[in-house]
Amino acid sequence: MSGESQQTAMHHGAAPRLIALDWGTTMLRGFLLGEDGLVLDSRALPFGIMRLPEGGFPAAFDRVAGDWRRQFPQLRAIAAGMVGSAQGWVQAPYQSCPTGPDELAAGLVRTPDGTLHIIPGVMQSGSAPDVMRGEETQIAGALALMPALQRSAWLVMPGTHSKWVRIEHGRIQGFTTYMTGELFATLSAHSILGRPAAEAGPTDPASDSFARGVAAVRAEPRGVVPLLFTVRSLVLTGQLAAAASLDYLSGLLIGEEIRCALQSGTRPVLIGESALCERYQQAFAQFGLSSLDMVANGAAAGLWRVAAQAGLIGKEMTRP
Amino acid sequence: MSGESQQTAMHHGAAPRLIALDWGTTMLRGFLLGEDGLVLDSRALPFGIMRLPEGGFPAAFDRVAGDWRRQFPQLRAIAAGMVGSAQGWVQAPYQSCPTGPDELAAGLVRTPDGTLHIIPGVMQSGSAPDVMRGEETQIAGALALMPALQRSAWLVMPGTHSKWVRIEHGRIQGFTTYMTGELFATLSAHSILGRPAAEAGPTDPASDSFARGVAAVRAEPRGVVPLLFTVRSLVLTGQLAAAASLDYLSGLLIGEEIRCALQSGTRPVLIGESALCERYQQAFAQFGLSSLDMVANGAAAGLWRVAAQAGLIGKEMTRP
Repeated sequence: MSGESQQTAMHHGAAPRLIALDWGTTMLRGFLLGEDGLVLDSRALPFGIMRLPEGGFPAAFDRVAGDWRRQFPQLRAIAAGMVGSAQGWVQAPYQSCPTGPDELAAGLVRTPDGTLHIIPGVMQSGSAPDVMRGEETQIAGALALMPALQRSAWLVMPGTHSKWVRIEHGRIQGFTTYMTGELFATLSAHSILGRPAAEAGPTDPASDSFARGVAAVRAEPRGVVPLLFTVRSLVLTGQLAAAASLDYLSGLLIGEEIRCALQSGTRPVLIGESALCERYQQAFAQFGLSSLDMVANGAAAGLWRVAAQAGLIGKEMTRP
Repeated sequence: MSGESQQTAMHHGAAPRLIALDWGTTMLRGFLLGEDGLVLDSRALPFGIMRLPEGGFPAAFDRVAGDWRRQFPQLRAIAAGMVGSAQGWVQAPYQSCPTGPDELAAGLVRTPDGTLHIIPGVMQSGSAPDVMRGEETQIAGALALMPALQRSAWLVMPGTHSKWVRIEHGRIQGFTTYMTGELFATLSAHSILGRPAAEAGPTDPASDSFARGVAAVRAEPRGVVPLLFTVRSLVLTGQLAAAASLDYLSGLLIGEEIRCALQSGTRPVLIGESALCERYQQAFAQFGLSSLDMVANGAAAGLWRVAAQAGLIGKEMTRP
């Protein structure tokens, strides 16, 4: 998948209105959007800010959107994500919460060449400091796609750095990051916990080891840390198949995230890619919360929402 | 340091009685022991079982002890550690706890060439399975060096895989492993948490960031997981110097180990290298336990203790 450009069929006849980029650490996703944020075309390139092609940011921008820009020179371009960080193309300083699409639009920063508008990230200051970049735009999109969430909602965005976000009146009130995905990737690849699975080959998809990990951490009031080494010792004592041990680790880590973050009395809503959200659904069910609402990744909708607020949407026009 | 042979001055006049090896994953330590386990000579070579020289285990054994074996051909040789694991020279099956020096001596396994006796590891079975290899021998040594611990003690052995061990009547009753050292190494080297420190250069030794990490996890009833990302966000929000961020992470992780493992009413005893034990002392003090007893790494004493029980100590003899 990665390294390949993914092209969707172009919707002929609809007029393009905006070029929108979701530009993270590892991936660069581009969208050509028509009226109401309709996705006319999209691609994904492996040019995240940590693996840019020769020529750097301008070259990556040209690879993902150069043909669109030449074909529709009147269109504006907007981006969200790590491209606005200190390691990005231009720094878009964090906005403090509470914040929402209107404040994000007011905080747009342009690249030195003026070609791309970058949405700022969001910072929570105080004794529980936290930061996000890119998720604020996905949230804007989710709230646009599902307006019932605007008044009050609790969003869970599973991923490398999962975010748990409180929404009131359409704005981000506060949030907490859990490094669940990165912990899993790092421990699997670089610690002794990944070794049995690496030697054992592919995971049995019918294994119940994920659920077993969730159950183990739910039953341990001290949390996941005293349980981590059991990923190894259960294999050594013959109680866990080596091929299932990373599923068990995944259950421990996702279970710990839910154990720590869950508060009684509020049903969270899941936002993100469906495969990972399904895994969280399974774990939430073990904590007594079944069939949570799910919203697909709202990056394109959020980019559209902020660009509209900032007046960047092009006028309707006929194609050349 | 690593890669260098460390030679102590040979105690001339004392008669060698045993060759003893502490053979772990990364390091191979050799001791030439005289009467009562007196260390006559020692070396450390970087030939742990995961980085053997050409020629494998026999070649590593010859590099660490070949001259001793040629000079004193009547001496027996004993080893403890990962050399007895499934990836070692020969597998010395785990002994179940409760177990102590007598059972370990009865469970010695010889290498195929008969030249080396290997001490088994220890397994805790049941719903909280756990394993150790090498620590059982350090424990035997600590109990020999500090007989007051034999009746009843609670030992903390800080390290890559810290062990908390309950002792009754000179035997290991049960234990729990915390992957504290490996978590720190893995997150520092391979996760986003290590990046600010890597760019900032050496840590300020006067920083109080370690104590700050301990205090943070002590004040968080849910434990370390919701705090991990603050290693990054505190730096991004200007509340923590990048150069101090790994000290803060170390405090979080050691603090979490103590938070999870500590039980009221019992004073633990620290066993191990003094620099790491001092760091644990500092963290224990923040949990209200000051000036815990400390015992130096007892590997040589433990190898001597088990070898004596197995009848492997050579007779007194004059040197050639």
